[in-house]
Amino acid sequence: MSLKLTILGCHSATPKVESHPTSQILEIKNHLFLIDCGEGTQVQLRKYGVKFSKINHIFISHLHGDHFYGLVGLISTFSLLNRRTELHVYGPKGIKELITMQLKMSDSWTNYLLIFHELDSKESVLLFEDKKVEVYTIPLKHRIYANGFLFKEKTNEERKLNMTEIKKHREIEICDYHNLKRGRDFKMENGDIIPNSELTLDPPKNLSYAFCSDTMYFPPVIPIIENVDLLYHESTFLKKDEEVAEKTKHSTAEQASLIAKEANVGQLILGHYSGRYKNLELFKEEAQDNFENVILAETGKVIELK
Amino acid sequence: MSLKLTILGCHSATPKVESHPTSQILEIKNHLFLIDCGEGTQVQLRKYGVKFSKINHIFISHLHGDHFYGLVGLISTFSLLNRRTELHVYGPKGIKELITMQLKMSDSWTNYLLIFHELDSKESVLLFEDKKVEVYTIPLKHRIYANGFLFKEKTNEERKLNMTEIKKHREIEICDYHNLKRGRDFKMENGDIIPNSELTLDPPKNLSYAFCSDTMYFPPVIPIIENVDLLYHESTFLKKDEEVAEKTKHSTAEQASLIAKEANVGQLILGHYSGRYKNLELFKEEAQDNFENVILAETGKVIELK
Repeated sequence: MSLKLTILGCHSATPKVESHPTSQILEIKNHLFLIDCGEGTQVQLRKYGVKFSKINHIFISHLHGDHFYGLVGLISTFSLLNRRTELHVYGPKGIKELITMQLKMSDSWTNYLLIFHELDSKESVLLFEDKKVEVYTIPLKHRIYANGFLFKEKTNEERKLNMTEIKKHREIEICDYHNLKRGRDFKMENGDIIPNSELTLDPPKNLSYAFCSDTMYFPPVIPIIENVDLLYHESTFLKKDEEVAEKTKHSTAEQASLIAKEANVGQLILGHYSGRYKNLELFKEEAQDNFENVILAETGKVIELK
Repeated sequence: MSLKLTILGCHSATPKVESHPTSQILEIKNHLFLIDCGEGTQVQLRKYGVKFSKINHIFISHLHGDHFYGLVGLISTFSLLNRRTELHVYGPKGIKELITMQLKMSDSWTNYLLIFHELDSKESVLLFEDKKVEVYTIPLKHRIYANGFLFKEKTNEERKLNMTEIKKHREIEICDYHNLKRGRDFKMENGDIIPNSELTLDPPKNLSYAFCSDTMYFPPVIPIIENVDLLYHESTFLKKDEEVAEKTKHSTAEQASLIAKEANVGQLILGHYSGRYKNLELFKEEAQDNFENVILAETGKVIELK
């Protein structure tokens, strides 16, 4: 299974020429999920060659401008591009009114079905599910109502055929494959049993990605994101500015790494850096005191898991 | 007198990597006026080194996204930068609710006085005036309520001292300069009169700039913008697509040039090009059939008049 994350922007607050506000594209099981949509996201999507028509689901963590001021522009652009496919927007209660009011004021409407899924639960809820993937909210703690999102490939129940072994047994025919994939043993004509474990391999591992931004240090997320392969956790500040972090309900790099460690995740991506820091390597160094596998988010960076 | 216009964006509709939606900065008489504010304008301001703190007046022509989706982000950024000076926003009725609702939803407010001047008149009205400059609306005709803006240096009533001539007459002292500037003749001790025209020069010419976007071909603007030194007039389409222009209530390059010609302006700037055209030189060629002095707006272009 595979998962590809493209960072379109990973800086906090005021956009500068080369530091864009939060937005990410996640490719998972043929879906192209857009996560947050700060001002200028549509230009970033163009820059990194993302096909607008393939985005059918947009997840907005919270209603601070640097996470959603680009949404109304993208929705309008979809109209100009004559989109016909429905678009699902998941975000805090109020997002529907904000967007529709702006469209109404400009006397324009979408020529496609725009479906809002407004969130107000403080529990983790299932937002989206199909045969191959599930998306859950991760309730966060910030100055306003905020959710992270957990993207999980669904358990693949079919085992993988071990063709090298299967070919050693002439009696096994293609019509038997279905039962082998479902974990059944093979019964030979002479009554002997070949155990399934000799003929098949474990199914490929399902991958998972958790996006946690914006939030203060909030341990209740740990059981929700436990064992994910990839975790993005905001780290607006360094430990030396922990007081500011607490006041503004953001996290430090150290706090992000503690969450990663406790949740036993595979890799940790840091981002949402405050504009006050010049040397972002310090974030990595601080986090690595607790958790080794740290990546610094950078605009345009692509992280692939296979 | 002098006037400096910086084009921050001049393309219509969907932003692309290198074609930004409408926004301009006008420097006139120590003012820095921001005209329209499409998505990404704050980044463009940074890119072209405009001091955020010097912008005290923002003029929004109409509520289509490519002319104002960058406004709420800029207003928020001003807060993050600890702005204390009041900010005036001039735009169509409804703009206040749109912006304040977004600020309210994010539980943030400006730490400076944010004053909206909502427009709904169909006549040209005076929006701003001080000792040196006046700003008027230019009612336009578009799919929704829209205004252009006319910026005028105010009549400088003081004549300029012609020092070369003045120095020839020992009797004229510094305390006489005030009367000379006001146009009075000089009376010699022997009773002779030196006419004012021999001792002073005409005051420097006052400059003016008219911004007309978005609009269909709309001759009622002509008396309002007559004899301006610089006119920006949208030209979304070429004549060959005049039907689309009519349908969408935009102008062609030819129509913009006819307005420029009839209004006897000094220079015409074209812009707001539809994304369908690759060769923008065709806009210039088309306009020059009627009006010679044509400039094509380009992102980052600076036009100075002295």
